[in-house]
Amino acid sequence: MPKANKVKPAGKAPAGKAKPELRAIKGGKTAPPAKPAAKAAATPLKPASAAADDAPVIALNLPPGKLSPAMTAYFKKCQDKLGFVPNVLVAYAFDNAKLEAFVAMYNDLMLGDSGLSKLEREMIAVAVSSQNRCYYCLTAHGAAVRQYSGNPLLGEHLVMNYRAARVNKRQRAMLDFAVKLTASPWSVEEADRERLRRAGFSDRDIWDISAIAGFFNMSNRIASATDMRPNTIYHGQAR
Amino acid sequence: MPKANKVKPAGKAPAGKAKPELRAIKGGKTAPPAKPAAKAAATPLKPASAAADDAPVIALNLPPGKLSPAMTAYFKKCQDKLGFVPNVLVAYAFDNAKLEAFVAMYNDLMLGDSGLSKLEREMIAVAVSSQNRCYYCLTAHGAAVRQYSGNPLLGEHLVMNYRAARVNKRQRAMLDFAVKLTASPWSVEEADRERLRRAGFSDRDIWDISAIAGFFNMSNRIASATDMRPNTIYHGQAR
Amino acid sequence: MPKANKVKPAGKAPAGKAKPELRAIKGGKTAPPAKPAAKAAATPLKPASAAADDAPVIALNLPPGKLSPAMTAYFKKCQDKLGFVPNVLVAYAFDNAKLEAFVAMYNDLMLGDSGLSKLEREMIAVAVSSQNRCYYCLTAHGAAVRQYSGNPLLGEHLVMNYRAARVNKRQRAMLDFAVKLTASPWSVEEADRERLRRAGFSDRDIWDISAIAGFFNMSNRIASATDMRPNTIYHGQAR
Amino acid sequence: MPKANKVKPAGKAPAGKAKPELRAIKGGKTAPPAKPAAKAAATPLKPASAAADDAPVIALNLPPGKLSPAMTAYFKKCQDKLGFVPNVLVAYAFDNAKLEAFVAMYNDLMLGDSGLSKLEREMIAVAVSSQNRCYYCLTAHGAAVRQYSGNPLLGEHLVMNYRAARVNKRQRAMLDFAVKLTASPWSVEEADRERLRRAGFSDRDIWDISAIAGFFNMSNRIASATDMRPNTIYHGQAR
Amino acid sequence: MPKANKVKPAGKAPAGKAKPELRAIKGGKTAPPAKPAAKAAATPLKPASAAADDAPVIALNLPPGKLSPAMTAYFKKCQDKLGFVPNVLVAYAFDNAKLEAFVAMYNDLMLGDSGLSKLEREMIAVAVSSQNRCYYCLTAHGAAVRQYSGNPLLGEHLVMNYRAARVNKRQRAMLDFAVKLTASPWSVEEADRERLRRAGFSDRDIWDISAIAGFFNMSNRIASATDMRPNTIYHGQAR
Amino acid sequence: MPKANKVKPAGKAPAGKAKPELRAIKGGKTAPPAKPAAKAAATPLKPASAAADDAPVIALNLPPGKLSPAMTAYFKKCQDKLGFVPNVLVAYAFDNAKLEAFVAMYNDLMLGDSGLSKLEREMIAVAVSSQNRCYYCLTAHGAAVRQYSGNPLLGEHLVMNYRAARVNKRQRAMLDFAVKLTASPWSVEEADRERLRRAGFSDRDIWDISAIAGFFNMSNRIASATDMRPNTIYHGQAR
Repeated sequence: MPKANKVKPAGKAPAGKAKPELRAIKGGKTAPPAKPAAKAAATPLKPASAAADDAPVIALNLPPGKLSPAMTAYFKKCQDKLGFVPNVLVAYAFDNAKLEAFVAMYNDLMLGDSGLSKLEREMIAVAVSSQNRCYYCLTAHGAAVRQYSGNPLLGEHLVMNYRAARVNKRQRAMLDFAVKLTASPWSVEEADRERLRRAGFSDRDIWDISAIAGFFNMSNRIASATDMRPNTIYHGQAR
Repeated sequence: MPKANKVKPAGKAPAGKAKPELRAIKGGKTAPPAKPAAKAAATPLKPASAAADDAPVIALNLPPGKLSPAMTAYFKKCQDKLGFVPNVLVAYAFDNAKLEAFVAMYNDLMLGDSGLSKLEREMIAVAVSSQNRCYYCLTAHGAAVRQYSGNPLLGEHLVMNYRAARVNKRQRAMLDFAVKLTASPWSVEEADRERLRRAGFSDRDIWDISAIAGFFNMSNRIASATDMRPNTIYHGQAR
Repeated sequence: MPKANKVKPAGKAPAGKAKPELRAIKGGKTAPPAKPAAKAAATPLKPASAAADDAPVIALNLPPGKLSPAMTAYFKKCQDKLGFVPNVLVAYAFDNAKLEAFVAMYNDLMLGDSGLSKLEREMIAVAVSSQNRCYYCLTAHGAAVRQYSGNPLLGEHLVMNYRAARVNKRQRAMLDFAVKLTASPWSVEEADRERLRRAGFSDRDIWDISAIAGFFNMSNRIASATDMRPNTIYHGQAR
Repeated sequence: MPKANKVKPAGKAPAGKAKPELRAIKGGKTAPPAKPAAKAAATPLKPASAAADDAPVIALNLPPGKLSPAMTAYFKKCQDKLGFVPNVLVAYAFDNAKLEAFVAMYNDLMLGDSGLSKLEREMIAVAVSSQNRCYYCLTAHGAAVRQYSGNPLLGEHLVMNYRAARVNKRQRAMLDFAVKLTASPWSVEEADRERLRRAGFSDRDIWDISAIAGFFNMSNRIASATDMRPNTIYHGQAR
Repeated sequence: MPKANKVKPAGKAPAGKAKPELRAIKGGKTAPPAKPAAKAAATPLKPASAAADDAPVIALNLPPGKLSPAMTAYFKKCQDKLGFVPNVLVAYAFDNAKLEAFVAMYNDLMLGDSGLSKLEREMIAVAVSSQNRCYYCLTAHGAAVRQYSGNPLLGEHLVMNYRAARVNKRQRAMLDFAVKLTASPWSVEEADRERLRRAGFSDRDIWDISAIAGFFNMSNRIASATDMRPNTIYHGQAR
Repeated sequence: MPKANKVKPAGKAPAGKAKPELRAIKGGKTAPPAKPAAKAAATPLKPASAAADDAPVIALNLPPGKLSPAMTAYFKKCQDKLGFVPNVLVAYAFDNAKLEAFVAMYNDLMLGDSGLSKLEREMIAVAVSSQNRCYYCLTAHGAAVRQYSGNPLLGEHLVMNYRAARVNKRQRAMLDFAVKLTASPWSVEEADRERLRRAGFSDRDIWDISAIAGFFNMSNRIASATDMRPNTIYHGQAR
């Protein structure tokens, strides 16, 4: 079992129901705040079990590092807008350079310009994380799919078996590609790219699908390797 | 995609939050009702998507069969106590003999006498269904774990990766056995049974763990083979 | 190794060569007897090894339960018609309720009305059990395929690799579906059902194929989990 | 389906029950004949299905080659002693050099000097062929295990799941090694060899286990690639 | 097959044999140059096949983006020090923000402070890439292992099967963890972390091992998804 | 770890760059010498690591056997033409009968008449060995592909992921068949043979592809089981 004195969750995470647009927080680039997270969660978690679940945040004992002003501001913005700092950021906070690199890549991929909608990007995140059975990412990005789609069931479909989701052909082709790339990357070839093109994706879109699927194959493994625990608030969001 | 005119969901499923004990409905044996399902669900699903998700209940066109008085009474009792008839029963209702056999086996395994608590039995159901990525069973039995345990996170752990659940050693041994039996039944041997005995399980308990794991390996496959869809109400229960 | 004093085989199993129709014994419903099992097996097994193989019947120490009159009659009928009580029934006999539920489901699936012939149902049983490498079910249902088909080689094909069997297109489609459903249930979708329909199966037939494949995925696991040993007489039947 | 005019079975295979020692036929080295195969098989196969099963012997159209005197004599000896020429030899007979190389390696491995008994070598053959689900080798070498052991059930155990066989610790270690080497050769390391040494095997024995397991990984693939069909007579031998 | 007009390799890659320390190029941070790459490669590749292999660099048609001054300087430094711009950078150059994020993360992980030597980090890269069978990363990082270690065989071991490498216990534990995390991330637990601690790794080291293994699980997939081709010069380096 | 005093490498292996035709050494049949191996290797291996890598040749302690005159002559010819005796032959030299059987089969398959070129046969060897992650065979036959093709990159493609190799359709079909036969031999059927025929292969060619793929499935396992180490000279050949 994890030893005591591990990385601690940052601040207090008041139960809140973040609107999708609140996710558009860019690291160090200070996008204008959208809407404050106002309402308390409708279904409060049992305090005991909630406390047990994400403390410590990871099963490694890493003393907190010194954050740059940009990262300090970013954490504050998370707290203000979302009502909490996502635990993946807390986990990375032992080393400011690693945190900045992670935030820059994450924000570019998930929030930057793309032919894929933000919902589609989160759908890839969840389908990949389901293939890899990653508790952290399924929880955090399952909540994001529920929020962006306004369809709580879509989040559940993607967590459980993306083939059960009633998505359109374009999205199904996208998820098939991402999951194949996750399960057997060595087997992806031109025929797979052609299938995406026939479903309407541009070559730039294919890069984005690949890069997002790749990113979560990284994050899933860091989370599993460290037993990273998601903020408990995610579980009740947008049900 | 499934053709039209498939098996329809039975009756109207009023949003309700069934207490765990309401599950103790015995087929044809009429246990006394426990507590009525009173409160409406806090987070109503989008009507459109909810309707889309479990209609039809399965992707096979099977005309409804004639139910025996016992089964008719059982359906009524479900409606009264749970507020809905579970879709697996609706799916089986095309043939009364099959329905009765399923109900008899299910109720014996999940509600009959056992050294395993009802929660532990549901935990096995979800861990097995996660290994098999079964949308129907993860949804219905994930809700049951949340209800019986009063710990919504436990349901999520078991749906996503049972190794993330912070359970005791006995329960971990039980889940390890059930998942190994699911993934590679040919490899289960005396050493595996001995591990259960050392964790405190009797030989009768080992039968029960095996039989429940076996049962959900059956149900998962029938559900996947027919694209069985869970009642949408499960998704919001006991969050 | 299994401990002593486990579930014992029921009665004495005189070496006999049961005709296929003798399998049509309905639990508690007393079908008329067909033909008695007359001839002794041509190749008697070495007593030592035979005795060693199915005693005990399972590797769990479960004291025998009290059978209902219906189940007592059913066991007697097995003894009269087949010359032995199948060990799976002996294994379940520690608990009458579980035995009855198993018998009811088994007899409905394997002997009840269906668009599938009894031979086809046994073929599914063996192909699924081969995928799961289940010694009990391969032995008992391999014998059934040999008996029903009058083709000893068909039984061997299905035990060893169903793709080696020279069956018609309908049966091949049926076995492909059952084996895929066994190996990766999460991947079965509408295209798989359509393949069955194109091979001439009705939606009701698809249910039956799925339910039988599901049933043996259950039985295989209970047998493997308990080291259930088939009656040695099966090995020599209908060679 | 295979095209017509494929490799034909050699000669007529009179149903016979070869004694184990009849297998000790050395290619080109003319060991003295042991005992003639006298008795007709107790359970004659249905002519229709038997004929269908091993004609053609393989699904490739390879015109017969010219055999050397040594190979002609070897075929004759097979016919005299076993009552038939094993179909694997018929298959190789399109090219005398390939036939001779195969026979030399086979006879050295399976009949030459070794710390492993001939039965143990056949046990490896069947366990490996079961892992690879090879119809030809399971049939031919399953019969050999039944013959050498005088225990028909041992042959069935090894065909179906070697873990069900009640063998001693030495033989279990041998089979575990052979099956691991078959399923994931990249993962075999010094610890695996040490396990064999602790079970009493010499380094020379380890070579033999490895070489036999390797040989059947070759033969299984050639048989599967060509749909090689075993002589039907094997099925009824030593039951 | 890939369409014409894909991402082109940057500049001319004069055959050179970069010293290990030349890899220490930090993106946008301009580390002082080490030693120039002087000698031409001893074994020039066939021009035809070499040209065919990495043109285009990827199988997606992505018009080149405008690089920031920092990235322009970084490319120039690569050209000056290594004699070429690694194709992964060329591939990312269609979008400066993605390129900068990739370079920042790569350089932090592979060249920043760590309890792991640079060689150990490259060893993880290759072992992970071998599990994923990634042509690009095996080529580029296989060369890096050869360079850093001065042991060409170590690079080959890790490309082919890391278990064949004769490394010390610490490094073996590190590679076992990285490969398990790659193959079945869901199965990594506290026992795996404890194994690393017992091999002498700190919790910070465990993070680094996980993050590097994660990073190459990302890069392997982006490379496979886009058919990214390594600069041909890598093949001959440090043999 | 391997114990001391294992099989030793034969003679001294002067660094040389064997021309492809030098491989055409027939066991006991004395083909005329082609060209002597003249040039010393351009990149000498670190003596320490090279010495460590193939001494002992295998991790089994097998005293050398007495070689027949034919085998003694064969070893001498290897030494004269190649500059070294391949370690697989050294490994087999503990038993002359086994060595002769191996050499006969190897030379027939890889150097005898066939519709496949010698390069194509080596391509199969490497693709199969990559699937099985066999260090010995990837090293020795990777060198052979580099030599026969004059394209060092083709060897690397096949070692790393044969799908990355830019081969023609015929060769791709051949490699797809060989790798499928390696990974799941039970699944190869007539449709797979038809695919080869459509790619231009005769039934005799299909036999050869199957037999070579089968042979390396054997050799890979013997090499992995014994930790067979390739002559270090291979690593630098034909780069």
